[in-house]
Amino acid sequence: MISSLNRYMTEKKAWIDSQLPLFLQNASIPEKLKKSMSYSLTAGGKRIRPILLFAALDAFGEDEEKGLATAVAIEMVHTYSLIHDDLPAMDNDDLRRGKPTNHTIFGEATAILAGDGLLTLAFQIVASDSLLDARTKIKLVELLASAAGAEGMVGGQEEDLEAEDKILTLDQLMAVHRKKTGRLIKMPVEAAALIGQATDRQFEALSAFSDHLGLAFQIGDDILDVAGNQKELGKPVGSDLANHKNTYVSLLTIDGARRELTRHVDRAIGCLNESGLKTSLLASIAEYLSYRTH
Amino acid sequence: MISSLNRYMTEKKAWIDSQLPLFLQNASIPEKLKKSMSYSLTAGGKRIRPILLFAALDAFGEDEEKGLATAVAIEMVHTYSLIHDDLPAMDNDDLRRGKPTNHTIFGEATAILAGDGLLTLAFQIVASDSLLDARTKIKLVELLASAAGAEGMVGGQEEDLEAEDKILTLDQLMAVHRKKTGRLIKMPVEAAALIGQATDRQFEALSAFSDHLGLAFQIGDDILDVAGNQKELGKPVGSDLANHKNTYVSLLTIDGARRELTRHVDRAIGCLNESGLKTSLLASIAEYLSYRTH
Repeated sequence: MISSLNRYMTEKKAWIDSQLPLFLQNASIPEKLKKSMSYSLTAGGKRIRPILLFAALDAFGEDEEKGLATAVAIEMVHTYSLIHDDLPAMDNDDLRRGKPTNHTIFGEATAILAGDGLLTLAFQIVASDSLLDARTKIKLVELLASAAGAEGMVGGQEEDLEAEDKILTLDQLMAVHRKKTGRLIKMPVEAAALIGQATDRQFEALSAFSDHLGLAFQIGDDILDVAGNQKELGKPVGSDLANHKNTYVSLLTIDGARRELTRHVDRAIGCLNESGLKTSLLASIAEYLSYRTH
Repeated sequence: MISSLNRYMTEKKAWIDSQLPLFLQNASIPEKLKKSMSYSLTAGGKRIRPILLFAALDAFGEDEEKGLATAVAIEMVHTYSLIHDDLPAMDNDDLRRGKPTNHTIFGEATAILAGDGLLTLAFQIVASDSLLDARTKIKLVELLASAAGAEGMVGGQEEDLEAEDKILTLDQLMAVHRKKTGRLIKMPVEAAALIGQATDRQFEALSAFSDHLGLAFQIGDDILDVAGNQKELGKPVGSDLANHKNTYVSLLTIDGARRELTRHVDRAIGCLNESGLKTSLLASIAEYLSYRTH
């Protein structure tokens, strides 16, 4: 299974990597701004969100072409959030995935605008998708805006900023993560359910699945920070602890975090089984992402 | 005419001022972020874009309720652009309409997120409008994204940044203004045409009208900067010149700029007359905005 899963993920990552630049290249955008948008959009990344969308479409027997524009849009929203997150006024990071961050190359002003431009383009791409009907597209716009906005990811960013130098309870930490990273992991799965014309029961099952997956993904991240291999990870081990960040490991110990991780993965898989859909691929990806080593 | 026009504009401004907070208040947004978004959204402003949308709907005999959500969305996009524009990395302004700018009160990080949140909420509001059908809404999303994004307003911001310390030709200056301010003045007029189910000919006439209006509005702004009354204006006269900004006045002299303004207003009114719609209200507003004294 691992090798066919690896091949699936490698193939889908290669496909989205090849498609992303096409959604920018024909747009009439000032040269420096376009370079800045393109730089971060093509700077790598695991393309987890597009892969989740394609795998969830597979559960409905739907052609993944139908999810391409939405996947591109989600990846643009994810990329914009990283650009703004790295700004001096936010996390002030010089490096992202081993490369200089957007503002260190293009300057802060252009980096802010590149983020604004990618966020806006995401909605344009969903709206102008020729493969979906208007009703589906308008639901996708609502879903994306709700996941990405002040009730979702942007709100989670704000809460994360405010949580610095405070010690959160487990419930508070989960609430922050559900918004900050969770909503944009749920969104591609729910988008596929919309595109695949899920029944209400199927939609709820997939939504609950992706909620647990989002949390598992974040717990996995926190575990990797203390137990990961620095070389594979591309960043120093233990940086969360050194920065006094609230993590599942700091609240639960590493063994407690591992138990919590397993609990969420098991519940995620349980939700998939309840959906009545062909979800073995989605289940493998969920396990792979949760127990990843880098 | 002036007094009934004034009454119309005052009424519509009061209506949109009363409606804007309602679109925020029920959203589940972290408290400080919500305050920051609300602060800038309710900080005043002439509400020109919503008024243009309502007046253009009037030309189709359409109920202005049908344009409310779109008008709110456009005002949110306009507000987000001002918040990001005022940031230290951009124009670094401490005051906007005589009040402290968003980041001076809430800090840069929250100001960036408030802008991101307002932009995202704008799309959510258009998508969830219960008065319009999905086809119209998806066209409005496309129109808003195209006007606001890297091909429109955000691209104009970038070009404006790059034009600092350069002397532009008239054509270059017009190209920057068409994007930076023009697109978001066109957008409400074109949105009304979509909502009012304009014929292609009507849409083109209104689109051309609003293109000239957008330029006239900017030329009027440049003239006010040198010939306006500091007290009415709320900012020092001549600040563009002092900052070596490219303006219509610096390129054309004040008399040349006034001739160019009249030319665009006349052409704007000409386009309205070609539309075959009931556009006397829209014409009065265009003249009022172009020849305004503050």
